Amino acid sequence: MTPRWCLLPWRLLGGSRLDREIRVGLCGCGVIGEGLVTALLQHADVITERVGAPVRLAAVADKDPARLDIVRAQDERIALVDDAFELAQRDDVDVVVELIGGVEVADRLVRAALGAKKHVVTANKALLAERGAALFALAEANGCDLYFEAAVAGAIPVIRVVRESLASDHILSVRGIINGTSNYILSSMANEGAAFADALKAAQEAGFAEADPTLDITGGDSGHKLAILAGLAFGARVLPGEIPTEGIEQVDPRDIQYARNFGYVIRPLAIAERLEGGALDLRVHPALVPEGDPLAHVDGALNAVAIQGEMVGPSFLSGLGAGAGPTATSVAGDIIDIAKNSLAGAPVRTWNFPSKNDQEIQEIADLSSRYYLRFSVRDDSGVLAALSGKLGDSGISIEQMVQHVDAGDEGTASIAMLTHHAREGDVRDSLHAVDATDLTTAPTHLIRIVE
Amino acid sequence: MTPRWCLLPWRLLGGSRLDREIRVGLCGCGVIGEGLVTALLQHADVITERVGAPVRLAAVADKDPARLDIVRAQDERIALVDDAFELAQRDDVDVVVELIGGVEVADRLVRAALGAKKHVVTANKALLAERGAALFALAEANGCDLYFEAAVAGAIPVIRVVRESLASDHILSVRGIINGTSNYILSSMANEGAAFADALKAAQEAGFAEADPTLDITGGDSGHKLAILAGLAFGARVLPGEIPTEGIEQVDPRDIQYARNFGYVIRPLAIAERLEGGALDLRVHPALVPEGDPLAHVDGALNAVAIQGEMVGPSFLSGLGAGAGPTATSVAGDIIDIAKNSLAGAPVRTWNFPSKNDQEIQEIADLSSRYYLRFSVRDDSGVLAALSGKLGDSGISIEQMVQHVDAGDEGTASIAMLTHHAREGDVRDSLHAVDATDLTTAPTHLIRIVE
Repeated sequence: MTPRWCLLPWRLLGGSRLDREIRVGLCGCGVIGEGLVTALLQHADVITERVGAPVRLAAVADKDPARLDIVRAQDERIALVDDAFELAQRDDVDVVVELIGGVEVADRLVRAALGAKKHVVTANKALLAERGAALFALAEANGCDLYFEAAVAGAIPVIRVVRESLASDHILSVRGIINGTSNYILSSMANEGAAFADALKAAQEAGFAEADPTLDITGGDSGHKLAILAGLAFGARVLPGEIPTEGIEQVDPRDIQYARNFGYVIRPLAIAERLEGGALDLRVHPALVPEGDPLAHVDGALNAVAIQGEMVGPSFLSGLGAGAGPTATSVAGDIIDIAKNSLAGAPVRTWNFPSKNDQEIQEIADLSSRYYLRFSVRDDSGVLAALSGKLGDSGISIEQMVQHVDAGDEGTASIAMLTHHAREGDVRDSLHAVDATDLTTAPTHLIRIVE
Repeated sequence: MTPRWCLLPWRLLGGSRLDREIRVGLCGCGVIGEGLVTALLQHADVITERVGAPVRLAAVADKDPARLDIVRAQDERIALVDDAFELAQRDDVDVVVELIGGVEVADRLVRAALGAKKHVVTANKALLAERGAALFALAEANGCDLYFEAAVAGAIPVIRVVRESLASDHILSVRGIINGTSNYILSSMANEGAAFADALKAAQEAGFAEADPTLDITGGDSGHKLAILAGLAFGARVLPGEIPTEGIEQVDPRDIQYARNFGYVIRPLAIAERLEGGALDLRVHPALVPEGDPLAHVDGALNAVAIQGEMVGPSFLSGLGAGAGPTATSVAGDIIDIAKNSLAGAPVRTWNFPSKNDQEIQEIADLSSRYYLRFSVRDDSGVLAALSGKLGDSGISIEQMVQHVDAGDEGTASIAMLTHHAREGDVRDSLHAVDATDLTTAPTHLIRIVE
């Protein structure tokens, strides 16, 4: 055990905790930044009570003077600067909050703050997924904390739960809905029967999708978050580029309807699972989830994470994945943790980010899964038999199959099918062969089933 | 900020963290204790990695030699003693885990351990609900940590989430299914149409209910947990005796069926909510929950907690509420937290248990709620009209009403009813008046609706 006498100095100095304060510097005062300003100012009472000392917003940096004006109007004692790098060096700041986003500038800013011996809180998933290992090494070398709860799944405390609550367990799998935009779009397609493009447009108008939604709908954002989550859960560094990733753009309203007929809901999932041989099964894609699964009930902009541990069994967390209030609450929780560490005289209390990138990741072709398939076929007798025959020849075993006549498309039909477990490479090869015949009138659509 | 030089001593001593170890002493080796032994021995690799130093099970105390034999068979280096108080004083123990249960002896044991400057982890909800404030004061005075995640909702990390993740937010309400036995019994009544007594017997045979299930089925166990949870969420000391508490014994299979017809599921809830005037609405009782509510999907022995925060919005956690593996994982998570505190030279990092018992709690008669009512009536024409008239006279407004002819009971019928919002005292008075007439053949049954 650490000798306890090292606690004595500041206690002997005679100061109660309330003589001290933790001073926060915020870089980037957009939607989440503004939420954090509100949280720190309006909830100062409860924060002081829970920390045992005041947490004071000392400085805010933003390039946009209008944003600084909004802060000034709330508390004129806050120092306002236009340069985040200047803020990161200020003597009156103990904790730097990085909310500027992006990778390159944020990376330099976090390095500057750590170099100046400031603790750092960031919500930047791309930065951590790409550069996390180096930043954590720098934080430790400088005796500083680096916290990032808000980087994954907004308000859901999944980082804390994986690192602390489940720290003794062998984690078997992590499955999450960790992109609210994708879930909002698929939910509104399901509820209103809208096509993808229309649902996306409505999501943008409702403020649930960015003007450029690429990173969300292609699965890139989920990939960043999964890289962080898998790293913590399995103790291995994973880079986003190593994760097989598919977006939700190919999901058709018919898929949602046919899946529902089979008793499934389509959700945008991120999955990390330890396989028996030790490799990781990592993937981001839309998936059919059974109606009874807790993830099937996670609707709209909600996020959720289901964790399976060897001893703990099933654990499920849900909450809002984005937005000013939820994300700012996660950032503020990190600030409070750092404040408690600092008051107790013990920064760098948390274990570090995994740095070894030596983890074997399963090729997606080697995945064993059940699949939902949608074939576009000529509405002829004999097509069904020919199709089943071809699949059977390749060893693909059909569990359920329904033929739907396509409304509006004279002479064509859709065949929706659920397969038994099969190797994905074999299924793809088989579909390739089928699509090369004249049985199908368009490329066959495949969605994985996760149960 | 705390001067950082107080961190230097042990770093300057040159020891890496791996030169140190945290030594655990376990008091009480029943089902959960055995689970903890398994976790600490079999997951030693992952725990060492996450703590940065080994966590070693140094000693186990139990009065039953057979239990100690089981431990000896797993690792003969563990010291085995029959006296928990002797263990609490051992020089080779840094953290004492109290799993003996009960209040009086556990209280003395925890005091002895804290007095000997040991950190303590306990899963004892009754002890904390009754004596928590005094024990936390003693822990702080001795410079020791006192952790208790496993005391509430088993594997669900609700203590950590409320104290850390949501520490900046104003919590508005906490609603939970925090007694697995009650939920298991109500679930099997719903799934199999069994009567309460039969479902209880089946739960005992399946190991989901104790031989003496009183504390579970009467709501007492949930009351202990809610007292702890409400204290943390609202910063006020609450004693279990102050919480209006009803068990599940009065729930009839007909209630479950009629509720389902109205679109509700009956769940055993524990509720803590801040009312506008500042008083707390605290209660434990079976309740009708709308089918679409996440709590409605929490089936069997699962526990769940739904938290609503001012900024964070809705937050939902579920997992196994009892059992060796889940509970031991929560205990081990606490041990790991203490180990990290100690290695960083900073015990007593967490804020304390609320000690002021000055919180106003709403009288249950003043509750404003919707209600499910089941009247047992003579199967006569005119009864329905007379009944509605009587309720209307007392200002109770009926939202939906269905008459069911009771199978087997010739000449009687049940009327199931949902009311609009009403003050509970008024509803009770009105039912009292109705039950004094010859309209009803048995006392009318009331279950609150929570939505």
